[in-house]
Amino acid sequence: MAEFAKGLEGVVAAESKICRIDGEAGQLYYMGYTITDLVEHCTFEEVTYLLLYGELPTREQLSVFSAKMRNARDLPEPVIHMIRDFPKDAHPMELLQSVVSYLSSYVEHRIHHGPHCNCRDTLHQIAEIATVVATYQRFQEGKEYLPPRKDLSHGANFLYMLRGEEPDPFEGEVMDKALILHAEHSFNASTFTARVVASTMSTCYCSISAAVGSLYGSLHGGANEKVMEMVDSIGSKDAARDWVHTALDKKQKVMGMGHRVYRAKDPRSFVMEEYLKDLSEKKSDWKYYEILKEVETTFRERMEEKGKPIYPNVDFFSGAVYRVLGIPTKLFTPIFAMARVSGWLSHILEQRVDNRIYRPKAQYVGHEQRRLVPMEER
Amino acid sequence: MAEFAKGLEGVVAAESKICRIDGEAGQLYYMGYTITDLVEHCTFEEVTYLLLYGELPTREQLSVFSAKMRNARDLPEPVIHMIRDFPKDAHPMELLQSVVSYLSSYVEHRIHHGPHCNCRDTLHQIAEIATVVATYQRFQEGKEYLPPRKDLSHGANFLYMLRGEEPDPFEGEVMDKALILHAEHSFNASTFTARVVASTMSTCYCSISAAVGSLYGSLHGGANEKVMEMVDSIGSKDAARDWVHTALDKKQKVMGMGHRVYRAKDPRSFVMEEYLKDLSEKKSDWKYYEILKEVETTFRERMEEKGKPIYPNVDFFSGAVYRVLGIPTKLFTPIFAMARVSGWLSHILEQRVDNRIYRPKAQYVGHEQRRLVPMEER
Repeated sequence: MAEFAKGLEGVVAAESKICRIDGEAGQLYYMGYTITDLVEHCTFEEVTYLLLYGELPTREQLSVFSAKMRNARDLPEPVIHMIRDFPKDAHPMELLQSVVSYLSSYVEHRIHHGPHCNCRDTLHQIAEIATVVATYQRFQEGKEYLPPRKDLSHGANFLYMLRGEEPDPFEGEVMDKALILHAEHSFNASTFTARVVASTMSTCYCSISAAVGSLYGSLHGGANEKVMEMVDSIGSKDAARDWVHTALDKKQKVMGMGHRVYRAKDPRSFVMEEYLKDLSEKKSDWKYYEILKEVETTFRERMEEKGKPIYPNVDFFSGAVYRVLGIPTKLFTPIFAMARVSGWLSHILEQRVDNRIYRPKAQYVGHEQRRLVPMEER
Repeated sequence: MAEFAKGLEGVVAAESKICRIDGEAGQLYYMGYTITDLVEHCTFEEVTYLLLYGELPTREQLSVFSAKMRNARDLPEPVIHMIRDFPKDAHPMELLQSVVSYLSSYVEHRIHHGPHCNCRDTLHQIAEIATVVATYQRFQEGKEYLPPRKDLSHGANFLYMLRGEEPDPFEGEVMDKALILHAEHSFNASTFTARVVASTMSTCYCSISAAVGSLYGSLHGGANEKVMEMVDSIGSKDAARDWVHTALDKKQKVMGMGHRVYRAKDPRSFVMEEYLKDLSEKKSDWKYYEILKEVETTFRERMEEKGKPIYPNVDFFSGAVYRVLGIPTKLFTPIFAMARVSGWLSHILEQRVDNRIYRPKAQYVGHEQRRLVPMEER
């Protein structure tokens, strides 16, 4: 039987210029820029431009690009119907996957004629995801469709649509920066899915729709939801220490700690922690922050006893940030998609430049030829 | 720079018991049975059962399974709206991808609790694809929604929905057998896509939706459409010989000839050729058959001069068969999806039994760390 790497673990599937993760140093780079610099100096629209064009925009380029994205925020009537008709207890990721491929039909695709496509021109697949997610939530709450606003950042407009009122500037900024932090993270199942589908010369929308389907899987997206389930079941700061000790004694997983790639603290978790601290201060509600810090400290002490330092990842604080912003848990993975779509699109464009269709082999381990027994004799 | 196989060519991505292709001998097996036996003795529903359960059904098993599939043919009202609202000049594959993930919301998925899921129980994702494709076409022609019938085979019911009247038994049979021929073909971009998405523990529907997105790509589905474009541009039997010589002299591709895997004649093409012959006889219209045979003969003569025998593949005759059955060219790739969905589902179930998430690596070849230049200085 041939040797093979299950899940293609360790197999190089492509070269890429988009993302570098330095796990040892705890650094993450998009197109050569550290995530810390990007989050400090840029908006989500600016980072999206960087991911799609490979360079940061000048003020004029950003203003054109930004206008294009903002003009693409509103939904066509049939898509609003799809959201309204969507079964109430179903998961919004299924809706999102469905809507993105539906949107493909509103755009003239030019991909069949070469490596270039109009992904950068239309931007519906980035801009409208936020509107779909917010509208889904509004309909869940029995509210009406609220058209997006063009004068707000991508993050602030999302909160506006969710709430029906403009968020204060700091909350809008936090939402926008959270999207930057989640916009790209090299290869993973959803990004790889986007590239595989794009490699057939399918449309950008169809490729992103497929990636949404991957992200929906419980082994992929959803980690910050699980952190908040943990936080809820802990309940209070005072209970956190015992909870962690009990969990570790029972060899249960403590959610949001450790990362497959990072050996140092995930650089994104520093940023998220700061936002959670600032938001807690503003709201004078320290509950989530205190529980999480107690979990982190206790966990770290236990790991240090074993000489195995393990640090929080981005999901450890992000769920609490969203919760404090008033966002329901069901939207956490859709928000991940709202952010990651920029990275997916970047990978799709890169895949197209020097494309080869992804077509690995299967090793056949089934039956030798069998005689077909007629139904009467089965 | 690390060596890697572009498009994962030659890389084994999994073991599989589903499909064996013996390219040298020109044989194709599903679960150990030759395609020739399956097409001679089974219905599409029976082959779908085989692909999902690994064994051919007894009469009673088939009757239960068949009833389940037929009961799942009708569409929920919101899906009918989606089809009606779909932009008229867009491609039905985008609609199909969208509808399949939308359908995911109508089913209770149990995948999060283990390797088993209810894919075999609901079967909407197989049964309804045919209804979506037929309904799409009816709306294109300004006709009304026609509910499916339960007393017809999967293939015959599809023709019934398309036409609004019951096809004669032979035509219904040809359609059903054509679906068997296309139901499975080991790894390829769409099947691999289905497995990658399934490996995240996303739902069967979301995985199949993604596979539809892959099949839509011009490097993947669509070969039989291109054969018919060629046939149309040749126009008549008398023009075929010169057309092929000219094409080969100009080093143009002759569509539907040769196959990446088969060194002998694709076993499916024999069957399709027979059907085309029988249908041409019944309709007393030999036009497509004669053009194709003339192309095949001329092409083969030229290749034999070079000592390189190249044979027709399944797409060479299938487009003409569909055309003679009155099916518009735009539906050829959706029909491929209608058939292949059984194979995709088989692979999804197999993937789940001993799952590892697909997560290959990217080789970073981009910028070293760059200083972020403030916008004013860009």
